[in-house]
Amino acid sequence: MASSNRAVTFHAPKDMRVESRDFPKLQMPNGKSAPHGVILRLVATNICGSDLHIYRGSFPVPEGMVMGHENTGEVIEVGPDVEFLSEGDLVSVPFNVACGRCRNCRARRTDVCETTNPKVDCGAYGFNLGDYDGGQAEYMFVPYADFQLLKFPDKDQAMAKIRELAVLSDILPTAFHGLMEGGAKTGSTVYIAGAGPVGRCAAACARLLGASCIIVGDHNKDRLELVKNNGCETIDLSQDAALTDQIEAILGEPRVDCAVDYVGTEAHGLGPQAEDMDPAYAINQVIDATRAGGATGVIGVYGPDPLAKSKAEQEGTYPIDFGKAWIKSPRITAGQAPVMHYNRELMMAILWDRMPYLSPMLNTKVISLDEAPEAYATFDTGVPLKFIIDPHGLIPA
Amino acid sequence: MASSNRAVTFHAPKDMRVESRDFPKLQMPNGKSAPHGVILRLVATNICGSDLHIYRGSFPVPEGMVMGHENTGEVIEVGPDVEFLSEGDLVSVPFNVACGRCRNCRARRTDVCETTNPKVDCGAYGFNLGDYDGGQAEYMFVPYADFQLLKFPDKDQAMAKIRELAVLSDILPTAFHGLMEGGAKTGSTVYIAGAGPVGRCAAACARLLGASCIIVGDHNKDRLELVKNNGCETIDLSQDAALTDQIEAILGEPRVDCAVDYVGTEAHGLGPQAEDMDPAYAINQVIDATRAGGATGVIGVYGPDPLAKSKAEQEGTYPIDFGKAWIKSPRITAGQAPVMHYNRELMMAILWDRMPYLSPMLNTKVISLDEAPEAYATFDTGVPLKFIIDPHGLIPA
Amino acid sequence: MASSNRAVTFHAPKDMRVESRDFPKLQMPNGKSAPHGVILRLVATNICGSDLHIYRGSFPVPEGMVMGHENTGEVIEVGPDVEFLSEGDLVSVPFNVACGRCRNCRARRTDVCETTNPKVDCGAYGFNLGDYDGGQAEYMFVPYADFQLLKFPDKDQAMAKIRELAVLSDILPTAFHGLMEGGAKTGSTVYIAGAGPVGRCAAACARLLGASCIIVGDHNKDRLELVKNNGCETIDLSQDAALTDQIEAILGEPRVDCAVDYVGTEAHGLGPQAEDMDPAYAINQVIDATRAGGATGVIGVYGPDPLAKSKAEQEGTYPIDFGKAWIKSPRITAGQAPVMHYNRELMMAILWDRMPYLSPMLNTKVISLDEAPEAYATFDTGVPLKFIIDPHGLIPA
Amino acid sequence: MASSNRAVTFHAPKDMRVESRDFPKLQMPNGKSAPHGVILRLVATNICGSDLHIYRGSFPVPEGMVMGHENTGEVIEVGPDVEFLSEGDLVSVPFNVACGRCRNCRARRTDVCETTNPKVDCGAYGFNLGDYDGGQAEYMFVPYADFQLLKFPDKDQAMAKIRELAVLSDILPTAFHGLMEGGAKTGSTVYIAGAGPVGRCAAACARLLGASCIIVGDHNKDRLELVKNNGCETIDLSQDAALTDQIEAILGEPRVDCAVDYVGTEAHGLGPQAEDMDPAYAINQVIDATRAGGATGVIGVYGPDPLAKSKAEQEGTYPIDFGKAWIKSPRITAGQAPVMHYNRELMMAILWDRMPYLSPMLNTKVISLDEAPEAYATFDTGVPLKFIIDPHGLIPA
Repeated sequence: MASSNRAVTFHAPKDMRVESRDFPKLQMPNGKSAPHGVILRLVATNICGSDLHIYRGSFPVPEGMVMGHENTGEVIEVGPDVEFLSEGDLVSVPFNVACGRCRNCRARRTDVCETTNPKVDCGAYGFNLGDYDGGQAEYMFVPYADFQLLKFPDKDQAMAKIRELAVLSDILPTAFHGLMEGGAKTGSTVYIAGAGPVGRCAAACARLLGASCIIVGDHNKDRLELVKNNGCETIDLSQDAALTDQIEAILGEPRVDCAVDYVGTEAHGLGPQAEDMDPAYAINQVIDATRAGGATGVIGVYGPDPLAKSKAEQEGTYPIDFGKAWIKSPRITAGQAPVMHYNRELMMAILWDRMPYLSPMLNTKVISLDEAPEAYATFDTGVPLKFIIDPHGLIPA
Repeated sequence: MASSNRAVTFHAPKDMRVESRDFPKLQMPNGKSAPHGVILRLVATNICGSDLHIYRGSFPVPEGMVMGHENTGEVIEVGPDVEFLSEGDLVSVPFNVACGRCRNCRARRTDVCETTNPKVDCGAYGFNLGDYDGGQAEYMFVPYADFQLLKFPDKDQAMAKIRELAVLSDILPTAFHGLMEGGAKTGSTVYIAGAGPVGRCAAACARLLGASCIIVGDHNKDRLELVKNNGCETIDLSQDAALTDQIEAILGEPRVDCAVDYVGTEAHGLGPQAEDMDPAYAINQVIDATRAGGATGVIGVYGPDPLAKSKAEQEGTYPIDFGKAWIKSPRITAGQAPVMHYNRELMMAILWDRMPYLSPMLNTKVISLDEAPEAYATFDTGVPLKFIIDPHGLIPA
Repeated sequence: MASSNRAVTFHAPKDMRVESRDFPKLQMPNGKSAPHGVILRLVATNICGSDLHIYRGSFPVPEGMVMGHENTGEVIEVGPDVEFLSEGDLVSVPFNVACGRCRNCRARRTDVCETTNPKVDCGAYGFNLGDYDGGQAEYMFVPYADFQLLKFPDKDQAMAKIRELAVLSDILPTAFHGLMEGGAKTGSTVYIAGAGPVGRCAAACARLLGASCIIVGDHNKDRLELVKNNGCETIDLSQDAALTDQIEAILGEPRVDCAVDYVGTEAHGLGPQAEDMDPAYAINQVIDATRAGGATGVIGVYGPDPLAKSKAEQEGTYPIDFGKAWIKSPRITAGQAPVMHYNRELMMAILWDRMPYLSPMLNTKVISLDEAPEAYATFDTGVPLKFIIDPHGLIPA
Repeated sequence: MASSNRAVTFHAPKDMRVESRDFPKLQMPNGKSAPHGVILRLVATNICGSDLHIYRGSFPVPEGMVMGHENTGEVIEVGPDVEFLSEGDLVSVPFNVACGRCRNCRARRTDVCETTNPKVDCGAYGFNLGDYDGGQAEYMFVPYADFQLLKFPDKDQAMAKIRELAVLSDILPTAFHGLMEGGAKTGSTVYIAGAGPVGRCAAACARLLGASCIIVGDHNKDRLELVKNNGCETIDLSQDAALTDQIEAILGEPRVDCAVDYVGTEAHGLGPQAEDMDPAYAINQVIDATRAGGATGVIGVYGPDPLAKSKAEQEGTYPIDFGKAWIKSPRITAGQAPVMHYNRELMMAILWDRMPYLSPMLNTKVISLDEAPEAYATFDTGVPLKFIIDPHGLIPA
């Protein structure tokens, strides 16, 4: 067994490094023994858009923290209270750390586990949310393994589809959750704000669940191209036209049943008018784009943002067009996805070949651990790629 | 305006005729004026599997009744209390007659409208359910038009897809409802009992909503061929093997998340072992095929059956394996579909080209009104076709 | 039949008058004939907190408009397309004007009817929402009567409970809807912001549906007294203590499962710190008071407010603590209640004596039409009363 | 610590004994170590109606099995993987044994846990469902304690209400689940078949959730008396009148929104016409009593019954009036309750004094362990009591 663990670590904004760490133990961040945990050898560990918040410095984390919350791996060690997993099992790790024992976990709300990071009732790997090491590494520790891990039924079959299955740890269920927040169902008209990897997964999920008219908006033409080629409509937000007018030109109506923000506060950092945009730009657009009787999801992050200009935003207060929307009975749902609510079903859809458009829309690129720091910089430019780190060279070409 | 109305009428089991009737009036079957009604020129009116119950005599109707509950037509006359429809509109007619004013209709349960046929809280066209004339005719009357009718947004676009849109009046929403009864959703494993037109629509709907493994069972190889060629698995029920074993061979598990009976009591009239089959054959199979924690839908009709052998069945009592299923917490939902719950969304999916597999699975054949009696006989043999009557020769080739 | 109609009318802020109007016709505000309508003799027509928005001038309406959206009356004339109501029937009128024929009404979303006031997809009596005359009058016109009206099954029984049944037209279902928006159910802990008539109805509804700890907050001690005496906990918001601390002192936890704002923007007009309060005070309080995994309802009105100080508020943009809440996965639902979703069930609960605490909490006062203008002024002071106008002197003492 | 464990054991039909067993270990029935388990000192352990199935011999269990699945106790020993419980905690034990780690438990379906008794996907204490010893004893072992156990927040408060809290382990949540299966909600009309302890809990739960007309049917006048005195209507099933006629006499309509069978197959063993009744008597009654658009729950057990007369029933096949009901769109849900879905919320309702009618309806009688065998015989006569065994003399008088 390995005695060390090479990992991607955060040092300062725009300074990610690959360094050695101790081999992980079956032990919680606070030092308590974790008989319910396992050690994984990472097979695929992706760079996520929310990792860029850390990279840019808008989500502060401790210096030296191991990055990575989109993890897929092979079980190589099991604790004494792990009953339903064995060495050699290939598993997907939901990005939320969840105990399966608190009130919220019992109610399937693993996005707000009360025990794994009681400070904010929300734990995650590779974030400043409970001090759990991330998985952009050779190995990682996962607690509450029987509860949390999704085992792939057939390892060979799974390795053959690993580029798609790798997004079950976060962005595919997260994208799907946004659509559920927004009430999307068979036949719905959908507006997806943002054509980054999560927005593109949302476009794929909208197709999967039988949505009718699926419109994706972004400023980035390359990203829009990926979704346009795969059965969706697109809106170039850098055009000088109201969003509702652009929707009407496509749909015949100015508003959709379900609109979801996959962008968050950093919308104001994008596009030609970036300087003039307000931090609530994306959320106010999706609220406006939702029809009376429809619903709005907010997957994009709106937290207290230390890099924001105004004190209000720094503290988490945003100017929201709530009074414009009130008369149309808005329903707005936000926050992290409870991955376990969706990952098994989405895995089944992938294994039965129901999402042939997922891979072309994702446009994944597999890289080594050492290439990760550079990939952060590249990803930050908005390229239409999804980076998957393959720490052990296991992913077939 | 026409002064008469040629129509397909029932005279006796296996005796359907085309005859002339009076041109319809804005008037309820009981003679009451219907200011809320419209007169339609039929554009497409399909023969349904449940019309075969009438054809065979297992569902008794009055001699001379006009057949047809799967109707699509053009508005040619509107009553004084019709506000949102105009002459020339092309509309789909849900097979349930529903007032939109009773407690159940207000709660979206148009399958159990309390006023249009209060004898059993369920009205339908072309059945012995409230004396509403069917639409296998040149013209028909539809009450409560503003509430009931689904208007196609663009007539030319709709005529170009009329073979698919024609099934919105019944079998496509009915099939979808069965899946909803059975709790199907994205990623579900599904067993569909029966590969007739409704079962084939169910296979299409299961694909639409992102089900993973979709298995269809039937004795008829030609029907199974249609679904096999369109992304579904099939089970030949004439094989000598337990259904759960056959499911396991496909899925790796003996039971599915969602199983739906699209067959009904007449299962015992089909297949080589027909004589030995019990009338609860199909329902007991779907109950058995449902996993613990799953759900079962029963779209196939189980009524008091005058042609049944036993007195119990004649009165509507069936030997059901409820005691075998109880421990796995069964949920069994049955009855007619509230078409309005689903038809708009399914129309949207068709109009946005989300069901390319629907037409190949349906295998529609367009016929004239005069060909209808013969089509009943042909359909009764189990051919893998769906007959659409085109009374005015309007459907493009 | 009467030839005129005495009614409470708006002339200017703080200037309500009783004046004569023409006797109503079966006719829509735009002059179109309404065969689906009825004329009612008003039996009970209440003054609502949202009438005070009009009274104060924060919700502009045309001079001379007839007030009143909380109406209960007796049918005295029916249009030719009214089938299920007869002269003499006693009915409750949902405050939303809804056609029962558009997409939203068909989906039970009568709060966002698309046809009765297409400007904002929301119609109401006695508001500037579609030009429908209110019912603070002797007589009123109600369109789409079969669809909209709730008939009381027994007139004598209903007259004996008319003080309670009178709130079925708005505030009882509205209060209940707020709890549903906030996900309240049996055993939930609930925080209700505001002890006005709607907040007090919410306290009664929370008891009805089996909530456990029910906390009501207000600045007005008299109003709080009414709920305290009827099985609820209270928080005096004029105390200098954080709301979450006060909740914790009662519940042992700082946050509840379900928090609902029954106040709206005018929170800043109440209490000792009124001048310093921001217009988003109430909504930010309920968002803060909701636990991670819970939900928040916003029944209080947040519209563009012409009387607000800042331009942003005047246009409907509010500073909302969305970024503080995002990590706890908030769900925020707002808008008017679809009264028909709840009124029948709540009527049944009243008729079967399941809300003995409702009357004591409401504290109704019955007045004549001529007393109405003065009652507006009294109600505006925050008295713990609910005024019911009895235009024909029919309500038993 | 004790070295032995006195317990109520089954020897033969009508032969229950109190015997000594070994003190329990942290060990699964198959001998595997259970680091996730705890040992409890029983504080209250009730005799349940389903224990009578064992007592009578209709549900076969091994000779010598320790009885008891309605358990409340104090934690006296915790395994090394128990993190959120400590010695001294007072807890309620859901009767289902559930791992919290399988697909069904993750989806809150602890009634069909896949691992604790994989033979039928359903484990329970003190039954022949996975070999788990029951709790009618001094001590018991409970696996997966963090996941399964409901801790009372304040021990003294809980001991003061222990007679009510003791039914959280089974019959109160089971009763509530039946109502949920039947779609009961605020304002619903409800028919409850059976006035045994579960039926009486159902009457209390129906009140708690705000049902309007609550009707309970039974042959036993003493049991009916308990519910009649606590705000419910009653029907004496020994009267010679159709159930729907008796409902109509109370409600004004022959059918209710929600009907639930709390009786099961043994209905045929009760009442004057016992000999003539069929084993599907109760289920067919509740199906008949449900209105079109309503739903039916089946909490009463329908299993393969070795004591039944016919071979079909012995195998679990019952003559069900499914064909009479089909046209009214029945929804029938059956099986064991997932206790964890409801027990916390019901505990909250009890702790906040929302069910003052529960105790009077239950009519509990506290007995010692040694009195248990006689209590089985007494309970089997249909007395209107609920027996709670208090093995250590801890329950205050």
